[in-house]
Amino acid sequence: MSNHSYNDSDKAAIYKVIAERRDIRHFLPTPIAPAILQRLLQAAHHAPSVGLMQPWRFIRITDAAVRKAIHAQVEEERMHTAKAIGEYENTARMAEFMRLKVEGILECGELLVATLCDHREKHVFGRRTIPEMDLASVSCAIQNIWLAARAEGIGVGWVSLFDPPKLAKLLAIPDGAKPVAILCIGHVNSFYKSPMLVEEGWKTEQPLSEMLMENAWEDNS
Amino acid sequence: MSNHSYNDSDKAAIYKVIAERRDIRHFLPTPIAPAILQRLLQAAHHAPSVGLMQPWRFIRITDAAVRKAIHAQVEEERMHTAKAIGEYENTARMAEFMRLKVEGILECGELLVATLCDHREKHVFGRRTIPEMDLASVSCAIQNIWLAARAEGIGVGWVSLFDPPKLAKLLAIPDGAKPVAILCIGHVNSFYKSPMLVEEGWKTEQPLSEMLMENAWEDNS
Repeated sequence: MSNHSYNDSDKAAIYKVIAERRDIRHFLPTPIAPAILQRLLQAAHHAPSVGLMQPWRFIRITDAAVRKAIHAQVEEERMHTAKAIGEYENTARMAEFMRLKVEGILECGELLVATLCDHREKHVFGRRTIPEMDLASVSCAIQNIWLAARAEGIGVGWVSLFDPPKLAKLLAIPDGAKPVAILCIGHVNSFYKSPMLVEEGWKTEQPLSEMLMENAWEDNS
Repeated sequence: MSNHSYNDSDKAAIYKVIAERRDIRHFLPTPIAPAILQRLLQAAHHAPSVGLMQPWRFIRITDAAVRKAIHAQVEEERMHTAKAIGEYENTARMAEFMRLKVEGILECGELLVATLCDHREKHVFGRRTIPEMDLASVSCAIQNIWLAARAEGIGVGWVSLFDPPKLAKLLAIPDGAKPVAILCIGHVNSFYKSPMLVEEGWKTEQPLSEMLMENAWEDNS
């Protein structure tokens, strides 16, 4: 068996970026250099995909009016979500939610909308019983962007507070395709030391040990 | 603006692992050292998650009989998929599919089943309009495993050829939870130079340029 391991320095860099990546909502308006944006998109394109489907599509938003319209849609969904949290949990929790900064759409240097491709029904391999595997592939692509961006010193936030059909209409996304992420990409003052929702007291993290089982589901709750 | 970028050597390591990661189906039976498995799982646990939901659960399969039963389920779905490809495309394509090695379940050193957690309906933040965001989070966690494993010189294959309710029954996964990945993890003779499905002539890759649009969907087809 040959040794395919990277050297210690490279391994350390990879574990470091995995640990230091954060979901960012606070951005500086400084533009992203085109060469960096290209590297991030190329990183996405190296992602695995079910049956080599490559279902990721990226719409780069350069029109300020479109950016504002996207922000308005997210703001609308933020209100719906607040109400749902109020009903499902309680009004104190709703108020806590309303205090959180959940996106940086108007401030970030680059805004991308990631969508699933159209004509997805053609792709049977690995999707016959789990059609949502295309979202899994796009998510791996976005995780690549997230990690590459952290290495570049750039923050990324995945906003999912939007109504897919409404956003599809705004961006002329055809039937069969589906927007799944609004990606805020930008320079930052600092990276959060812990996930922002932990820093803000919204939630505590559960340890890895609670996520592991052996040979069958075990009730950890 | 302070410079949060990693040094050139670290950045190069991160871009390298993103480019060299492969979906592996050919494994050596050598066991995975427990310390490495722990690092891979910790890497998964550093993933982002919608509303800090941490929806990933991992069932480690150490019982050979369970492993064989999982393999049998995948083999059954492989036949269903072949038939579906025959019907949707043609019999030549079905024969090509049948020649592909689509999993290494019986050979790999470690087998994990990744599942979505139960009680998912409690998590509203970021999921009111896109409930499948929990799969996105688990996929980011799996991409972390994939990248960390490549750095360790270890291969990972995500098998999605299975019927989730049947696999759930085998592993006593409760209603509300859902298995989404059978992860084959193991030492390898070599990493494919290109994705195996390209090397095997199953499919050609589309270039990144076909995935990019500006301000609205553009028909590239």
